[in-house]
Amino acid sequence: MRLLIRNAYVIPVAGSDFTGDVAVEEGRIVFAGPTGAVPGTFEADETIDATGMVATPGLVNCHTHAAMTLFRGYADDLPLMEWLTRKIWPVENLLTGDDIYWGSLLAGLEMLKSGTTTFADQYFEMDRVAQAVEEIGLRASLCRGLIGVSEHAEKALAEGCEFVRRWHGAAAGRISAMLGPHAPYTCPPAYLKKVVAASEELDVGLHIHLSETRTEIEQIKAEYGCSPIALMEETGLFHRPVLAAHCVHLSEADIKILARRGVGVAHNPQSNMKLASGIAPVVRMLAAGVRVGIGTDGAASNNDLNMVEEMRTAALLQKVAQGDPTVLPAGLVLEMATAGGARVLGLEDRIGTLEVGKRADVVLWRVNQPHLCPAHNYQAHLVYSAGRADVDTVIVDGHVVMRGRRVLTVDEETVLRQAERTARRLIESV
Amino acid sequence: MRLLIRNAYVIPVAGSDFTGDVAVEEGRIVFAGPTGAVPGTFEADETIDATGMVATPGLVNCHTHAAMTLFRGYADDLPLMEWLTRKIWPVENLLTGDDIYWGSLLAGLEMLKSGTTTFADQYFEMDRVAQAVEEIGLRASLCRGLIGVSEHAEKALAEGCEFVRRWHGAAAGRISAMLGPHAPYTCPPAYLKKVVAASEELDVGLHIHLSETRTEIEQIKAEYGCSPIALMEETGLFHRPVLAAHCVHLSEADIKILARRGVGVAHNPQSNMKLASGIAPVVRMLAAGVRVGIGTDGAASNNDLNMVEEMRTAALLQKVAQGDPTVLPAGLVLEMATAGGARVLGLEDRIGTLEVGKRADVVLWRVNQPHLCPAHNYQAHLVYSAGRADVDTVIVDGHVVMRGRRVLTVDEETVLRQAERTARRLIESV
Repeated sequence: MRLLIRNAYVIPVAGSDFTGDVAVEEGRIVFAGPTGAVPGTFEADETIDATGMVATPGLVNCHTHAAMTLFRGYADDLPLMEWLTRKIWPVENLLTGDDIYWGSLLAGLEMLKSGTTTFADQYFEMDRVAQAVEEIGLRASLCRGLIGVSEHAEKALAEGCEFVRRWHGAAAGRISAMLGPHAPYTCPPAYLKKVVAASEELDVGLHIHLSETRTEIEQIKAEYGCSPIALMEETGLFHRPVLAAHCVHLSEADIKILARRGVGVAHNPQSNMKLASGIAPVVRMLAAGVRVGIGTDGAASNNDLNMVEEMRTAALLQKVAQGDPTVLPAGLVLEMATAGGARVLGLEDRIGTLEVGKRADVVLWRVNQPHLCPAHNYQAHLVYSAGRADVDTVIVDGHVVMRGRRVLTVDEETVLRQAERTARRLIESV
Repeated sequence: MRLLIRNAYVIPVAGSDFTGDVAVEEGRIVFAGPTGAVPGTFEADETIDATGMVATPGLVNCHTHAAMTLFRGYADDLPLMEWLTRKIWPVENLLTGDDIYWGSLLAGLEMLKSGTTTFADQYFEMDRVAQAVEEIGLRASLCRGLIGVSEHAEKALAEGCEFVRRWHGAAAGRISAMLGPHAPYTCPPAYLKKVVAASEELDVGLHIHLSETRTEIEQIKAEYGCSPIALMEETGLFHRPVLAAHCVHLSEADIKILARRGVGVAHNPQSNMKLASGIAPVVRMLAAGVRVGIGTDGAASNNDLNMVEEMRTAALLQKVAQGDPTVLPAGLVLEMATAGGARVLGLEDRIGTLEVGKRADVVLWRVNQPHLCPAHNYQAHLVYSAGRADVDTVIVDGHVVMRGRRVLTVDEETVLRQAERTARRLIESV
């Protein structure tokens, strides 16, 4: 299967923008360059005329809990512990595998329709999440969440490992798997060490929530006399590839550890703002050489899975927090949301840029619209003005999964109806 | 002309939400209540079936410079003074009346397509802005910007007064006018006193930038020994109805003055973040009883005029700044962006809610979409998940100006083409 995207304004993220073509063969980019320069030997099975459109790598959502779309708008504007213990946990306890399947498909639809082609997810009933990913055609890094203090901790770890064996590399390589220890305050060091050992054996990374709230920092300090990052270092977690979500409250020593160990950080600005967790020191992390990508977190705390807006929020929040309008310029933010995210997920060899050799995860943006006019600077437009609805076409692994905003892989009406029905049943059962 | 909107989920902002109908006669809401309760005597000339849609009052953008859409994406991520003096001012100096007309139409298109029905504008060549407003069918509060330290200060004031006489109450009452002293650091007290006297004579309000940056605070302190707010109080500005844009840096005494004098504040969170001006103390202002609305500021510092996203940013920014997820809940933010904005513009008797007696400025939102599913809470969905593209139909003063996202009053292609051409010419001339 050979696909040719013609006459786009291409933002490859690696290298300079150009107007031209991207050619794809068997899901792999075989050419990306100026109009008319595609080798004459390339005969396309399908050609997309992208005149007047902007092409970028697909956005990488580095941290979410897809099925929590079912709780979008169910509990807002509450104190954190009341939100968690009285609202989210009780209804989460009722979730069946089918519920998680429909919630994940809803999230998948939402992500495709806002230009996300890859996401990292930590939840449970992960076989059903993987099924949803496989069907809808997204790329994902999935892990079963592990709560070390639970009575089912050992069983969960066994299931998490089983999930890795079953799904790592599945869906034609679109699905990768990790192990998912939830957080330092739910996973004591002894348990984490078992998880680290398992990840070594399985040769996969770890996806964990780290240093999200002041409460966590205080709790770990009280119990272990150090920061969560220092505790993870001591536990040996960072000997493995780690995707650390949040990293809001960090000392300079913490940042040095993250940089030295090559930890990938998922920055979730809207969730951190909505839950009033704090403002992550993104500028300091980047300056220290930490790998930082962008994520939405789950829809219960965001409330959408919209990476376009998350880019904008990331830029604006750092500018005001630093008192410096020059930090996180548009090009850097676009890099964080694509190539940066790929690095955080350990997928930098496969995705994140529009370069020959990469898998073809491509978004085409329709830019002939009032809020993207005049055409002074498309990188700035995508970061500071674009919205999810500007995404016209989405290609994952060389397959066109959305065209003209119509998702081709699943029936949108059915997903909306089933998700709505599921959510109502859950809320009525709490 | 009688218009009937049927079967909407109505968020009237004043009072409880309901599913039902809104009836409009000669641009005025004559009924708003549950399905089936419209008086039998009401015979509609036009009926909109809004089943599956949410109806809200039109959004009120309390502060912008519409024609600056021409500079969207032209200069980003620069230090404030470099941005202003090397980029914005040189190109602004080249603007002709025609340029401002096309830039304002572009802004008008963008605002209608994101649910804004009323905006407050301060710029120059205001006759051409008013012409654009009249043609596109928006409601606006317009004023000519006045720079007291300019050699043309007196002439500008005369023009500003002339503009008020010509346009206040024009376009079937959709246009109101103010006087627009730019800021305390560009308008010395002696000049401001003349402006105040003129506004008394003309019986209109004042639209001014106030306490936007730390530099302004320091400059006024050095020159006058007090805060900008205290200086305005002393100058007598607040004896008039005042729309004060920004109000980022305020003492407790400043906030008390704003509350006591009934000053309307336009909060512009995205502009304040992008220019790194700071975080306005919105929660403290509201607690003190200050009238606060929301604005986008101009597209050179935002970069879009999207009140849907501005609502979200206002809520999230206060939560993280206060360290409290309960502040600025969704319902309050929706109120600020509608009824609150109307109060800030002195239009609270005419617009801001869907109540009998108000002019019919109504937005219909299409909600059968992944990012607005499930339907737990439409107020939360509008503030935390919706995007501009969810706006389906816009009614201003009883006239349908957009239907199915198609603006009916001007030709969108022509506006985009002319704005693009204008912007290119300007940039090439700098």
